[in-house]
Amino acid sequence: MAIKRFLKLYVVICMGILCFPLLGVINTTSGAEGTGIELVNLSVDQPLVAVNDVQHDWNSWSSVENASDVNPGSHDILLVSNTAESHAKAGAESASHQTEATGAVATALEDFLELAKYGKAIHVMAMLMVGFGFLMVFVRKYGYGAVTATYIAVSIVIPYYMFLKKMGIFGEPAELKMDRLILAEFCAASILIATGAFLGRLKMSQYIIMALIFVPSYMLNEWIMLDNGMGIIPKGQLIDTGGSIVIHQFGAYFGLGVIVRMTTSEDFNKKIESDKISNQFSMLGSMMLWIFWPSFCAAPAEISRMPIAAVNTILSLCGATLATYIASTMIRKKIAIEDMANATLAGGVVIGSSCAHTTPQASLILGFIAGILSVIGFAIIQPRVQKALKGIDTCGVHNLHGMPGILGGLAAIFIAENVVPGSQIKGVFVTFIVAWITGLAAGTVVSLFGYRKDSYNDAVEFIVEEEHH
Amino acid sequence: MAIKRFLKLYVVICMGILCFPLLGVINTTSGAEGTGIELVNLSVDQPLVAVNDVQHDWNSWSSVENASDVNPGSHDILLVSNTAESHAKAGAESASHQTEATGAVATALEDFLELAKYGKAIHVMAMLMVGFGFLMVFVRKYGYGAVTATYIAVSIVIPYYMFLKKMGIFGEPAELKMDRLILAEFCAASILIATGAFLGRLKMSQYIIMALIFVPSYMLNEWIMLDNGMGIIPKGQLIDTGGSIVIHQFGAYFGLGVIVRMTTSEDFNKKIESDKISNQFSMLGSMMLWIFWPSFCAAPAEISRMPIAAVNTILSLCGATLATYIASTMIRKKIAIEDMANATLAGGVVIGSSCAHTTPQASLILGFIAGILSVIGFAIIQPRVQKALKGIDTCGVHNLHGMPGILGGLAAIFIAENVVPGSQIKGVFVTFIVAWITGLAAGTVVSLFGYRKDSYNDAVEFIVEEEHH
Amino acid sequence: MAIKRFLKLYVVICMGILCFPLLGVINTTSGAEGTGIELVNLSVDQPLVAVNDVQHDWNSWSSVENASDVNPGSHDILLVSNTAESHAKAGAESASHQTEATGAVATALEDFLELAKYGKAIHVMAMLMVGFGFLMVFVRKYGYGAVTATYIAVSIVIPYYMFLKKMGIFGEPAELKMDRLILAEFCAASILIATGAFLGRLKMSQYIIMALIFVPSYMLNEWIMLDNGMGIIPKGQLIDTGGSIVIHQFGAYFGLGVIVRMTTSEDFNKKIESDKISNQFSMLGSMMLWIFWPSFCAAPAEISRMPIAAVNTILSLCGATLATYIASTMIRKKIAIEDMANATLAGGVVIGSSCAHTTPQASLILGFIAGILSVIGFAIIQPRVQKALKGIDTCGVHNLHGMPGILGGLAAIFIAENVVPGSQIKGVFVTFIVAWITGLAAGTVVSLFGYRKDSYNDAVEFIVEEEHH
Repeated sequence: MAIKRFLKLYVVICMGILCFPLLGVINTTSGAEGTGIELVNLSVDQPLVAVNDVQHDWNSWSSVENASDVNPGSHDILLVSNTAESHAKAGAESASHQTEATGAVATALEDFLELAKYGKAIHVMAMLMVGFGFLMVFVRKYGYGAVTATYIAVSIVIPYYMFLKKMGIFGEPAELKMDRLILAEFCAASILIATGAFLGRLKMSQYIIMALIFVPSYMLNEWIMLDNGMGIIPKGQLIDTGGSIVIHQFGAYFGLGVIVRMTTSEDFNKKIESDKISNQFSMLGSMMLWIFWPSFCAAPAEISRMPIAAVNTILSLCGATLATYIASTMIRKKIAIEDMANATLAGGVVIGSSCAHTTPQASLILGFIAGILSVIGFAIIQPRVQKALKGIDTCGVHNLHGMPGILGGLAAIFIAENVVPGSQIKGVFVTFIVAWITGLAAGTVVSLFGYRKDSYNDAVEFIVEEEHH
Repeated sequence: MAIKRFLKLYVVICMGILCFPLLGVINTTSGAEGTGIELVNLSVDQPLVAVNDVQHDWNSWSSVENASDVNPGSHDILLVSNTAESHAKAGAESASHQTEATGAVATALEDFLELAKYGKAIHVMAMLMVGFGFLMVFVRKYGYGAVTATYIAVSIVIPYYMFLKKMGIFGEPAELKMDRLILAEFCAASILIATGAFLGRLKMSQYIIMALIFVPSYMLNEWIMLDNGMGIIPKGQLIDTGGSIVIHQFGAYFGLGVIVRMTTSEDFNKKIESDKISNQFSMLGSMMLWIFWPSFCAAPAEISRMPIAAVNTILSLCGATLATYIASTMIRKKIAIEDMANATLAGGVVIGSSCAHTTPQASLILGFIAGILSVIGFAIIQPRVQKALKGIDTCGVHNLHGMPGILGGLAAIFIAENVVPGSQIKGVFVTFIVAWITGLAAGTVVSLFGYRKDSYNDAVEFIVEEEHH
Repeated sequence: MAIKRFLKLYVVICMGILCFPLLGVINTTSGAEGTGIELVNLSVDQPLVAVNDVQHDWNSWSSVENASDVNPGSHDILLVSNTAESHAKAGAESASHQTEATGAVATALEDFLELAKYGKAIHVMAMLMVGFGFLMVFVRKYGYGAVTATYIAVSIVIPYYMFLKKMGIFGEPAELKMDRLILAEFCAASILIATGAFLGRLKMSQYIIMALIFVPSYMLNEWIMLDNGMGIIPKGQLIDTGGSIVIHQFGAYFGLGVIVRMTTSEDFNKKIESDKISNQFSMLGSMMLWIFWPSFCAAPAEISRMPIAAVNTILSLCGATLATYIASTMIRKKIAIEDMANATLAGGVVIGSSCAHTTPQASLILGFIAGILSVIGFAIIQPRVQKALKGIDTCGVHNLHGMPGILGGLAAIFIAENVVPGSQIKGVFVTFIVAWITGLAAGTVVSLFGYRKDSYNDAVEFIVEEEHH
């Protein structure tokens, strides 16, 4: 009982932290209000005054001291003006013009870099919403629940992650605005992966609690992996551009940890029902993930590596798609549409680590292997894992994100350039431990707030129409 | 009867105007044909000759004298070459090289600026089609009608707006090609918002008439708001980057004006039916709007403000999504999936005005408030509004676009920098008047072309298959 | 029987070729592995060493000697530094700084060019998957088959095309990485168009064989059209930016060739069934194609022409959409939703050739004409064509891609600048011949691997759930 109390307290504290930005904003808005009123009497000839305020305030939201190492090479273009400036000696006047001009160009280029990242951030958002959201709609009993949970989880995680990142609890904040958004989206992707495991056992309000616990857990692991947290992995040594380890493996094993605590014996006896239409929606989600996955992998890469990261991701997905068709036909005799919707994406999961550091050929092969592994997971391994864990993995995240994530993290040793094998192995191992422990803890905490005897049904929490067909 | 005649005449004139580009093109094509035939005898060594012709012709489609003020800062990059040129005195030869080079860079940067805007224009197009289109599919009786109306409305509005803009009737045309397209898309967004109010009362052909009346009405209001039309609001004083007032509020009250004229007593007694699948399609539309809304708000912002406009929009949407879940559960006891599909988007509506001029914290809070307001609208206010207007607001646009639009326009006074409160208040008030009057007029005119006794059903105009389930 | 043997042999050889990259990669990976192991002992201070290796390997995947002529103008920005360099005489030191700086800027601009193309490549991918995939879902009996065939075809074609392009069998490989990807996607678009014709007559495994035959056939025609293959059309003379001829016309007539060989008399007696939901999915696919079509046409255009190509495409689609509504209502009395889903897109098909070389007005009109032509095709011409060919054109590709493709190719003579009429006519004619012959051959070969007596049903190859409604 002491533990229960402690855990409830932890949740309350987490919620308290969430309220900080709300308090902070009161100052800001009242300040802005004052400025607004003063400006009535001013002419509009000084439009730049307020700009600086906003800019300043923006920075205070995430005061930057150092660039995150996620994107170390993206500022090369800024060197242009510096180089020109530092060498300028003769031809002084023309040189100074030049420096000025080039400086302005550098600013424009930096703006474009942000916009290039913005394009990818929106692609990732499409994956989160229509991708993960509709992929989970295949269960016909809680289609509303799946998309609503997606909406809620994303809407908690993004502001919460950005706020915690600004606080600098786990490592230094990212410098570029868009990098911060993309990192927050990656965290949201990871919780949606975890959600695939325990889908159908939480009420909507419990997704809020789950998100509040998930985000610090994820950031802890992210900090260890990428930012030399606890000194385990030297900064920049882990090759994991598109997050095979940090995003997919973490999400999957966190989810498995949760289901150990949150599955009743009734869940085992009820088959998860899908129908033609729910599966077609699931295929839509699958295709949205497939389409935009190259942006998921390319977003954190250096600008000059983005094209190769994207092409490698596409080839890996092609490999996995072919492998899925072949393996599903061979293992099950007939193709399971769930395999086509899920295992095809294992190519994106597996290439995450090495996408920016390997060859197209290796990507194609690695994707092919991941597709086969994933189908074997769905057809053969999943029942055994579920029996061992005494838990139901609703969407089979262990097959799609867990095993392919580990495979991708370790495969980088063989196919990526410049890799430190020890770091990859440590990365996979530590992530497994952290995800498992925090997942178990989260399952315990969330189950304090209500524990379903029978599995979820939209009618529990939604106004459901009678069906007219 | 005199009024009826006058109104019919007005429609005929509008249609006549639409035919102008068709007449204009005959000259152009025959000219191009001539060029084409001559070129058979020429070598292909002079590929630039015709380029200039096309370029010239393009400009004649919208002869540009001045940049629109929608995007005053986007040409800063061009200053690069100008500055360099005007100061060039010594080191003449090298300076001239530099100017030349920088000029070429400036051209390239301008191309990239167009492409960056192009990316956003396509995102907005996705919102118009799959977003608004499928959001309206929730009514199961006229799913075909909803998507077809979307197709027709967009396909009329975009060329018609671009043509009227070129004519320069309401203010000066936009300079950049993409700005013109984006403004046309905004107009299309506004008519789709209005369509949400009167959906199910027009035949497909009436959407064409409606579009012909809507576009000049919208442009009139846009001209007053942004271009000092009639001298009401000084140019550039209204803060309304993402169109809370100009796009959303206008569309909503125009639509409400129409339904006053176009609702029969039968509409009141028939409940609007939806089912699981039609609601799932509606959630798909909702998510498409959510995903791409940041581009909607960022598209008209200056390039350096695009990232903050986008992040603010995302945070506002997050706030509204959480608020919707909470408010829907509290007010209705169970979550209505229609709330999740609609009220979540109030965050995008409300942040439109101030997105590029406020802080992330303020955006989050404002979105939260808008979400609550919108759910209250759907659950409590809508029945009263419908009773008062004696009209049915099919998709509840008053709750999603009307009230949050006004809130957003006025909230800018408190949270945006550099705002002129009087202009915001005038903007909201004038838009209300213009939208209401033109909406009433449009409803009157369109009802002359046919008036439905019973509400729409796909079988009226579509070949509908028997359902096989 | 000799022919059958020969054809089977051909397929085996094609499959063998497909395996080459797999063999090639073994060398690469083992090499990379070696590097990886050595690097354990190295410090991470030399991160650029491996970068070069990857870069080198990438180039070996498609050794570049010359830029493809698809995108002749895209490197103008590189001229910046060259010009500066070649003129540099006086003001030596400052000039050299300038050259250096501008060179770095040029590199950055080149990166951005790749990213701009990347954005379009992803849009095209969305068209391939959700667009073509879901457009074909309208047949309710094989919805799973349609999306799975899409997945399989795309996943074969993209790596296979990229590999053959690297081999340089048909013309020189494209220089830019993204150009190569976009060309591969265009090939995938073409096979999906062809698939529309024979959908419902192939098993999934036969799509693999079909893809293996299609890609070299498509590349042969592409080589003749764009790369002076066989000396028929001088390089660069055919105006076909968005592929009215090379992509759409080819795909359509290839597909018609196949169905001549692969239709049984039973197919004629069975009506293709659709229902409300399958048609709604089809409208979703249609809208995804509409939205992203501007990127399809703009992707291969020069950077400065991309905006006008995109706007022209949008206007052509608007024209076709209006024409479809009008023509469908007039010809059929009631609107067929299949017309709205398909004929609206004829605007995109028809503008492909001239999109970057014509005026907005001409685009609007041409789209309008194409929409009418396409509806006439669906309503009147298709039954006659099917009778003549003794084949069923499942999705009506002759109406959407065949006739509008030819119209677009020839219309360029009248509306595009700088066009050589003879080349356009030769292009249309040769493409017709090549597509027809290779299509007939492909139909013959594929039918050796199994020939369906009755039309396809998902239950043949998929695990299909009982329907619960």
